This record gives sequence, C-alpha cells and structure tokens, in this order.
Amino acid sequence: MRSDHGLAVVRMGLVGAGRIGALHARNLARHVAGAELVAVADPRREAAEELAGQYGARPSEVDELLADPEIDAVVIASIAAAHQELVVKAAGAGKAVWCEKPASLTLEQIDRAIAATAAAGVPFQVGFNRRFAADFRAARATVEAGGIGTPQLMRSITRDPGWPAGLSNAAGVRPWTIFRETLIHDFDTLLWLNPGAEPVEVYTRADALIAPEYKADGLLDTAVVMITFDNGAIATAEANFSALYGYDVRGEVFGSKGMVVAGRLPSTAAVHYDATGSHQRTLRSDEEMFRDAYVQELFDFAEVVRGNAEPPVTGEDARRALRIALAAMTSHEQHRPVRLGEVR
Amino acid sequence: MRSDHGLAVVRMGLVGAGRIGALHARNLARHVAGAELVAVADPRREAAEELAGQYGARPSEVDELLADPEIDAVVIASIAAAHQELVVKAAGAGKAVWCEKPASLTLEQIDRAIAATAAAGVPFQVGFNRRFAADFRAARATVEAGGIGTPQLMRSITRDPGWPAGLSNAAGVRPWTIFRETLIHDFDTLLWLNPGAEPVEVYTRADALIAPEYKADGLLDTAVVMITFDNGAIATAEANFSALYGYDVRGEVFGSKGMVVAGRLPSTAAVHYDATGSHQRTLRSDEEMFRDAYVQELFDFAEVVRGNAEPPVTGEDARRALRIALAAMTSHEQHRPVRLGEVR
Amino acid sequence: MRSDHGLAVVRMGLVGAGRIGALHARNLARHVAGAELVAVADPRREAAEELAGQYGARPSEVDELLADPEIDAVVIASIAAAHQELVVKAAGAGKAVWCEKPASLTLEQIDRAIAATAAAGVPFQVGFNRRFAADFRAARATVEAGGIGTPQLMRSITRDPGWPAGLSNAAGVRPWTIFRETLIHDFDTLLWLNPGAEPVEVYTRADALIAPEYKADGLLDTAVVMITFDNGAIATAEANFSALYGYDVRGEVFGSKGMVVAGRLPSTAAVHYDATGSHQRTLRSDEEMFRDAYVQELFDFAEVVRGNAEPPVTGEDARRALRIALAAMTSHEQHRPVRLGEVR
Amino acid sequence: MRSDHGLAVVRMGLVGAGRIGALHARNLARHVAGAELVAVADPRREAAEELAGQYGARPSEVDELLADPEIDAVVIASIAAAHQELVVKAAGAGKAVWCEKPASLTLEQIDRAIAATAAAGVPFQVGFNRRFAADFRAARATVEAGGIGTPQLMRSITRDPGWPAGLSNAAGVRPWTIFRETLIHDFDTLLWLNPGAEPVEVYTRADALIAPEYKADGLLDTAVVMITFDNGAIATAEANFSALYGYDVRGEVFGSKGMVVAGRLPSTAAVHYDATGSHQRTLRSDEEMFRDAYVQELFDFAEVVRGNAEPPVTGEDARRALRIALAAMTSHEQHRPVRLGEVR
Repeated sequence: MRSDHGLAVVRMGLVGAGRIGALHARNLARHVAGAELVAVADPRREAAEELAGQYGARPSEVDELLADPEIDAVVIASIAAAHQELVVKAAGAGKAVWCEKPASLTLEQIDRAIAATAAAGVPFQVGFNRRFAADFRAARATVEAGGIGTPQLMRSITRDPGWPAGLSNAAGVRPWTIFRETLIHDFDTLLWLNPGAEPVEVYTRADALIAPEYKADGLLDTAVVMITFDNGAIATAEANFSALYGYDVRGEVFGSKGMVVAGRLPSTAAVHYDATGSHQRTLRSDEEMFRDAYVQELFDFAEVVRGNAEPPVTGEDARRALRIALAAMTSHEQHRPVRLGEVR
Repeated sequence: MRSDHGLAVVRMGLVGAGRIGALHARNLARHVAGAELVAVADPRREAAEELAGQYGARPSEVDELLADPEIDAVVIASIAAAHQELVVKAAGAGKAVWCEKPASLTLEQIDRAIAATAAAGVPFQVGFNRRFAADFRAARATVEAGGIGTPQLMRSITRDPGWPAGLSNAAGVRPWTIFRETLIHDFDTLLWLNPGAEPVEVYTRADALIAPEYKADGLLDTAVVMITFDNGAIATAEANFSALYGYDVRGEVFGSKGMVVAGRLPSTAAVHYDATGSHQRTLRSDEEMFRDAYVQELFDFAEVVRGNAEPPVTGEDARRALRIALAAMTSHEQHRPVRLGEVR
Repeated sequence: MRSDHGLAVVRMGLVGAGRIGALHARNLARHVAGAELVAVADPRREAAEELAGQYGARPSEVDELLADPEIDAVVIASIAAAHQELVVKAAGAGKAVWCEKPASLTLEQIDRAIAATAAAGVPFQVGFNRRFAADFRAARATVEAGGIGTPQLMRSITRDPGWPAGLSNAAGVRPWTIFRETLIHDFDTLLWLNPGAEPVEVYTRADALIAPEYKADGLLDTAVVMITFDNGAIATAEANFSALYGYDVRGEVFGSKGMVVAGRLPSTAAVHYDATGSHQRTLRSDEEMFRDAYVQELFDFAEVVRGNAEPPVTGEDARRALRIALAAMTSHEQHRPVRLGEVR
Repeated sequence: MRSDHGLAVVRMGLVGAGRIGALHARNLARHVAGAELVAVADPRREAAEELAGQYGARPSEVDELLADPEIDAVVIASIAAAHQELVVKAAGAGKAVWCEKPASLTLEQIDRAIAATAAAGVPFQVGFNRRFAADFRAARATVEAGGIGTPQLMRSITRDPGWPAGLSNAAGVRPWTIFRETLIHDFDTLLWLNPGAEPVEVYTRADALIAPEYKADGLLDTAVVMITFDNGAIATAEANFSALYGYDVRGEVFGSKGMVVAGRLPSTAAVHYDATGSHQRTLRSDEEMFRDAYVQELFDFAEVVRGNAEPPVTGEDARRALRIALAAMTSHEQHRPVRLGEVR
C-alpha cells in the first residue's frame, strides 16, 4: 500500500500513552506522511484505549502489539525506566524500533539495547528531537560547511517552563532526572554540533534551588556541566526546571571563523509597543518550539523503516550522550572533574 | 461518526486541484482535526485524480461532487473567475461553503453569492488566511483590548517572492490581479485591525515596474493604496510581485496609546555570524509563513459546519474588502481619490 | 591654530539658544573635533547668556556676532520663520552658513538664501540630521552600491513622542508644521535614498486626531503623503505628533534586488523576560536616536568650512524637500493629487 | 571655576598614553562635562607629548604631574603591571585616583593600593566600564528591583575581535592575561549582577586554541570559568581573544522570576535583505560598544572628586574580582575546583 507522495505506508505501534505518547500518536496519525498508527499499548489500559480511540487505532497490550505481524515498527514513549526492556523485546519481535530519549539509564542497558537491535537486524533510532528542528539543523549545516571554523566555545541550555511531570510525587523523587532526561538533550546537541570531536572531561555544579525541600533526596533542579572536547572546544550545558517566562532552549557554537546561534524566545512575530516599551509573548512549551521537529523525527524514522535511510540518531549516539550524563553525575557526587575514560 | 477529541466528522469536497487546492487537500486530509476529504473535482480531470489519490479521496466532477449526499461542505479553490458561480451552485445543493479569496470579482457577483447562501440557509466562509495567523491574531487582540487606543496610522503589505502563477501566460494577462487577488488581503487586514471603522476614501498609485512589457496590457505589479477611515485612521496598503529576499507580509497599527506590529521575515531562529556580520535566512513562501493559518481557517470552518460557531470571515467581509479593491482600481484608472460611496 | 588630530580650528557662532540651539552648542563645544563655539546670540538675551556661559562662549547680539571677524561660520538654530533672513545676513557678512531644517518656508525664501550664499561665495549646509545617522548612511550606501537594485517601494516615518514645543501656545498654532518641519525630514530622506530620481506627484491625507480642538485652526497632527518618482518608485511618508511609546523614525527601501531597512526602536540592548513575555525599553527622543548624527553633521560642516569637502546637504537639497512639502500642503488643501511641476 | 551645567571643574592628570590612555584623554578633554585634562605623562615622552598636544594639555613626567598642585585627580591608564605603584604614589600626593582595571595583579598589591588611598583619605575608583553601559545598568536595575527574583544561572562573556596589543611580542608573552585582564570584567560583572552574594568556588578550563604556539609559554586565549555563589547561583564566565565577527560582550541573569539579558551584536539598526536572507553589521570594538560607558565612568569619578558621590567601583570591588581571577588561575594550574577561601 502506498500513501500520499507515493510513500509506502509504515504501520506503527505506539507503547506509552502519557503526554509525550499522545503527542507522538497525534503526529503518527495526522502529520507524518506515509505513517499509520495501528495500535497503542500502555500499562494503564484506559489510557491506551482513550488515545487509540482518538486516532482510529487499536488499544493493545504490549506483548500483543509486539506480536502483531501487521506492525512494522514500534515507537516507545513509556517511562524512561522501561525503555531498555521494551527496545530489547521489540527487537526480539523483529520490529524496527524508535525510542524516546533517554534510550536507557545505564551503559549496561544501552549496550543491551544496541546489541539486541543489532542481533535482530532491525533499525534502532533514538528521540533527540532538537536535531530535527529547523534552527538547530541550520546551525549544524553551518558548522559542517565550515562556516564557523573549528569550534572553540559551545553552549546548550534547557530551561523548562514548569516542574516536569512525575519528577516528584507520592512514589518519591527521581534524583538524576536533570542529567539523564533533561541535559541529555544538551549533551547530544553539543556532540552533534561538534562533529568528529570526542568529549574528554566533565565538571558539574548542581543544586536544588527551586525546591530545596528535595535536596536531601538528591533531586536537583538547576545544573551546569562544563565539558571539554579533544579538539579543544570548551562547552557548557545548563538546565533548570522552572523558567517563569517560558520554554527556553538555545544553542551556540563559537569557532575560529564565526559563530552560529540557534533557539528562539518569542512565540509569535507580534510586537506590542506601549508607554513602557516593546513587548513580545514567549514560547511556552516544547510542543510549541519543537512541533515540526517531533514530526520530522518520525518521518525520518519511517524512511529508515522503508530502507531508504540510516537512522539519523542511533543507539551509539544515545550511548555517547549518556556517558556524559553519567560522568556529570559522578562529578556531582564526588565534586571533582571526571574524565570520560572513567565512565565504563 | 466522531473524530479525535470527540469532534463530529465533517465531510468535505474540494473543488480545485491547483497549487492552493493541493494545499487545502493536504490540510483537510491530515491536519484539520475532525475533517475528512471525501472528493476532489477539477476541470482538469487528471489533476483531480492525482490529488484525490494522494489522500484517499475520490476524484469527481463538480456537479457530481455537489450532488453527493455524503458531502457536508465544499471548499472552493478554483480560479478566481469561477468562484461566484461555484458558491451559488454549492449553496443550491445545500452545502456549507468555504471559498478562497477573492470570493468574487464584482459586487454583483458577491451579492449573488451572499444572497444564494443566505437563501439556502448554508454557512458561507471566505479564505482570508491572515486573520488566522498567530501574530495577526495577537495584533487584533491587542487592538480589541484597547492596547493601542484608537488607530491613527495603519500599514499592511504583501510582497510575493515570485511572479504569481497564471498572472501572465499564453491566455493573456490578468490586469487587476494586484488589487482583487493580492491587495484584497491587505484591505481585509486593515478593515479587521480597525474594528468598527468604515473606509471613506481611497487613492492609488500603481505601476508595472517588474515587467514593464505588460504595462500596455494593464498588468500592474507594484501598487500602493492609501485608505482613510471614518475614525480618522489613515492606512497604506502596498503590494509587489517580486521580492527577491522572500515572502514579506507585515501589518502595523499605530494608535493613540501605542502600536502593534505583525509579520516576520526570518525563516528560522538560527543566526550565523561571520567576518561580514550576522545573517539569517528569510521566509520564502505563503505556505511557510501561513502554514498554521491555512489549517486554522479550515478547522474553524468545520466548527461552523457543525453549528458550533458563526463564520469568522463572511461574505460581507469579502464584500467590504472588494469595495476597497474596486475603489482602488477606479482611482488608478481615473487618477484621482475615490470615495467608497462611489462604489456600488 | 590646530586642534586635535591636526584639524584647523573652525570658530563658530551660534544663533538660537532654544532646545535645538543648546544641543548644537554642546556639540560644538565638546563633541565636534576641531570646532570652537565662540559666541551665542538669541533675541532672548538671558537665554544667550546662560547657554554661552555653559560652554565658555560669549553672549552676543546677532549683528555683532555676524560682524565678528574671528568667527568663521554661523550655525543657525533659531525659529524656522527667521532662518532665511539669517542665512542671507550671514552670507552677506561672509560667513559660512549652516542652517537647521527647514532652511526656509517658501520657495522664494530658499531661492533667496541660495542666491545670497552663492553670491557671497560662502558654503551653505542644511541640517537634515538623518543623513548622518549610521543606520541611514548604511542604507544609502547599500542603495548606492546596487544592493537593492532599483527602488520600487519606499517608506519614511517620523513619530514624535510628544507634542512639539511651540506648536500651539498663546501666540496661536502653526498649521503647516507637520509638512514643513516634520515631514520635511522624510521628504529629504526619500529623495536621498532614491538617488537620481525626481518626484513627480504627491497626494496627502492629514488630520487632527490627537488634538481635534485645533482642527479648525488648521493644525494637523497626523499625516500620510504618497509620492511617486520618475523611476517608478512609490513612496509613503508618514508623521504623527504623539507616539506614546517613544521616538519612532524608520526608513525602508524595497527594490528589484532586495530591501534595506533603517531605524531602531529599542533604547538599549537589555531585554527583560518575565511571566508575561519579553520586554525592552524604547527610544524616547531625537537626541537619543540621533546623538551621533547631530555631531557628525557639524563635524562635516567644519570640514566644509576648512575647504576639505563640499556641503553634504545643500540649499538645493532643502529646496527639493520643500517643494514636496509645498505640494503636499496643496494636495491637502485642494484634496487632489498635485504634480511637482505645479509648485513654483 | 564652574563648567557647563554649573559643575565645578575637576582638573585631571592622565598617566598612560597608549590606546586606552588616548581614549580617556579624548573623553576627559571633550566628553566629560566638568572635567579638564591638564597634563599627560607616559614613560615614552613623545607619546605623552603627542597626546597632550591633541587636547591642549601639558606633557609631563609622572612625578611632576603628581606634584602639580593644580591637578585634583589622576587617571591611571598605564600598563597593568604599573597600576599599583602609581595608585600608591598618587594617593601619597593627595590626589583622587581613578585606575583602569585590573587595579592590581596580586592581592598584596591591591591591599597596598586600598590601604594607601584610605590612609591618604583620597577616593579610589576602578575602571570596570561595563557597569556604566546602559544595557548592563538596566540589567542590574532589573535585578535590584526584584524583576528576576533570586539569581540561579548567570553568564558573562568577552570575546575580543583581535589579539590584544602587547599580549605577545619581542618582550615575551603575558600568560595570565585572559584571567586578570579580560575575564576580570566578567568576574566583576557577575559579582555586580548578583548583589549580596559571595562566590564560593571556581573551576577553570582554558586552552591556547587560537595560537597553540604559545601554549608552552602559558599564554591562554580561550577560557571558561564556572563560579558558584553562596546564594546558589551557578555562573559561567567565558573569554576568547579572536572573534572574527567582532566584539562580543554579553551578560545573562536567570532567576526564580525571570531573566535579563544585556549585550548587543548589531552595530547599527540597518538591515539589508537580499536573495540570501537578512544581514546586519556587527560591533567591531570596545570603543564602539562602550563609548558612553567610558565617558560615564569618568563623569561619575569627577562627581566623586567633587564630593558629590561615593566611588561607584571601589578598590574592594577590584579585590573581589581579582580573587576570582586568582582562584581561576589556581584552578587551571592544579586542574581542580578551587574554593575562594583558598585565595589569600
């Protein structure tokens, strides 16, 4: 069967019906040309039913979904702790796998996921959405074209407009979230915008400034990580869980021949001028900033499933970003610079 | 039948399979929640077949499409000259009608279209897409909230990145296009951003600066129209068919308490700095600038068809903008200011 | 005598100790390298004394100042109505003459001023400060370098942050101020940014929207003038006397190969982001926006006096802008387009 | 004697006739209301003579200048290594002292300078020019007014457009320049934008990326310093000696209630649009970016000399910034985080 623009249809099963699962469901059903959302699974059955119902898909159990011969590929958008096991299972079932970041929380896990998908001969793509945003893509293209020369100073920041869901609740807190789930984006961005370079050392300072009451439990909400690369570039990655003015994601690469900056703050092109000056609304969410990027990453995945492309973000990419996260965590725990070589 | 988010499905038939028809087809099929593209008609049968095929719709003849009891509403995206007749026919068939701008080319036509839809008791919505763009909406909201006081000076501009299709070809040229098909957007925008005010007088200067070879045929490619309103506001509308740097649509309302500006030029948030300064890509098309607006206008129309809303842009709105266009044309022909009262 | 940078000192006498006179006095005394403020004259003797005292200059009567053999050049910053007579007198005294805009209020006056300076063989420079602002200069340089091709659409605006001094007082109102004293800047800017082109026709709409109580006296506070040029360019000039958000002067030239925009609104590079979005202060005065331009025009004049340069703004330039102003006034009075050829 | 605006004249002697000395000479002679440049001294007699000659001042020897009873205050703009001795001498001579940054290169030196000026009862002001720039002032005012809540993340950067003069020449290289002469600005800025907070720890990564040939001599050209404060704020300071696109100085303070950003890149408000997008010139020098700040700091100093104000930047401020620089240097040498308490 062929979709519009002559694309062969890729039948997708979605695992995970939370906020981000719902976002991917909508994109698969409506915005990704040549994709079809066939089934949705979630441990919370009603959530799967509701989401599947919205887009004419079938609610399902995970195992049933993975066993379905009509499904070509699986999109994993469960909680992070479940990612690795689902990747391995999906690979075992012969499905192409797309997994939200962080693909895994430990090196052992990511290695198992990489090995399983390799053994099964199925593609494995990871969800670093920034790589698919037009401005970050333009930045990368400029770097690759030599437009800024050799990177010397880099910056990547993530400031969430509000406390991430599930960060702290009755079930307790998730202490390392800021490194493995938030800054993981910035680590990947820095690696991607400094192509060919390897990180060498990491130094972290982090704190619980928004919610000091969680500090004793190790829940950090503000962090800066300095990373040095083997081509000399010195980078800072920075995160915070409560930017009152909105969603603030920016990147900057300064090099021997120039600079490129990505990321925007205004939410529309409207500017209001009054007696106090000029005023603009700011972006309020990742969905607002990365709407197209979320679509593009799944479109590109469908192309991978069709055999028309290699995964643009691989398990190895996830592993590289994870190693920086783990080094950053050790740096925080031991309050010292940590060499990437120490992370095994 | 219910779509996602519990929306009752609205079944749409599309008339017109050219560039803009294809754009609406795609939006109806994919991006407008609760809409379904059922059939596509076009005098060029192959065009209808190809476009329908892309989205799983049925190719059709116009009369067959209008007679189809399964179709709730008709989206008209044919050439401008055919708009009025199609509106009247669709209304006669009891369909809700959405028609691309310009809804008609003469007052007689638009009056017939308004009368036909009113007589049939069907909704009639017109495609002024700027009203659905986030920045123009924010501008209008600011005006309505009193954020700029009473409008005193206004500006609306449209600069196309390239010569519009069909403007000049073997079949001849379309002399009044810049007024009735391009500036009609600006006239509507100015009316909409100056709520409650009536235009009083129009003065036009226009020329064939890009393609002087068409001047003898009356094909104008550059025009400025000055419009005064009964609340004192003085507005300029400006159009040009060949902006080398891209697609440039902007609006500005200055009033007794401030100013609001809409429209943007950069196409992404990436900025490249090199030895010569800073550089940004610019927007290249209406599809790039108004992508969301094109979706929103049809989503809102579906709501109208469901009976949940009144048409946000009416035949009367189209008539008001058309009167300014006609006055502007007379002003150009007679080289004098023309009062709106002269246009009947 | 030589000043810093080896510049021969030019001894200046200033006529006019009002707001703009004080600004020029300060610049001559402090900021214009190679200039010396020798004397200040004003009908209000105390004003001359106070201003002269501030900069170590001599208070003077006009005739005494003009007769002073130590004075090389005269800077005229009196009320507009006195400009022409002072220019003629200064020329008669053999002084180089710099005169604030508008150099004169009628063609007869400007012709007399031009003739007098020519007969005396003294330089005559006029104060169109925008030509000396970095952004407008950059715009002009881009136009001259062919960076935008042939101008097709132009815009120049002036919005004052507050009611100009002396516009309306016990002595009555000054009805044509918006054309001959405010828009004169925009007319000159449009001429200057469209080099080699001649204006052909003018059409004006103007009103008393800020202070309708003065309408009966002919005091207009809001005006738009459309000007067509013999190279096809269509321009709009726009002015308003009460921009609540500050001082707003902008220029735009769109041509066959691109566009250049000059003018800025933010007053500093500081941006404040809070829960409602982003905020910037705006410029509040001509002194803030054109501070450097005011210095540069007098520095350039000193170079003219030294014989190192020709006047960058001539009496002919003033005459050209004035003709547009007069045509615009006639257009307003007679409510019709006016050809420049009608203004003699 | 009284100057304009009724300011008592402050007679200044300048020590140092290099690039920055010339800049201050020009400002004292022309742009600082109420200041008079009386004498200029420099070890290179001809330099003193030439600079003094430009502004009608007297060339002088240092001791002679300090002994001159007509001189109220001394502006020190010599090489950094000579600063401390000159401050002590000037204080001994009873002169008010203004000294370029860095006021001293060691804690002993700055303590001696502070003690000497205190003992002599003369004011002592230090030249951190960023504090006097309009945008940085606006940022500080916003922070002080609570506009961003408590600072959590901070950034200050300095990128020079070209290799600083005297950094490397026949006399050898100056290894710690990037910390004590460049980043010292950023350290002061961070302290000043986080009022009431004390720095706790510093971690540095630095390299010779522009000129690796100097690495063996310890000449670093690229550095990032992470600083934590006792109110939880985590800051990064970043410097580089060769920004191809111009002079790039920016600051950012993110807090619990918002963010404020200072620093600008475009050099004028002119924007050029062509077929490749939009283009702006960028700032090329500190003189271009901080022209007003350089004037303001000396104007404020004159007010201090008059007894109308306290020094806005004190020896203690210089000491605080210097301690961070010294900690950053130790961090670099020992490759470990360094606590401020270690710096004595």
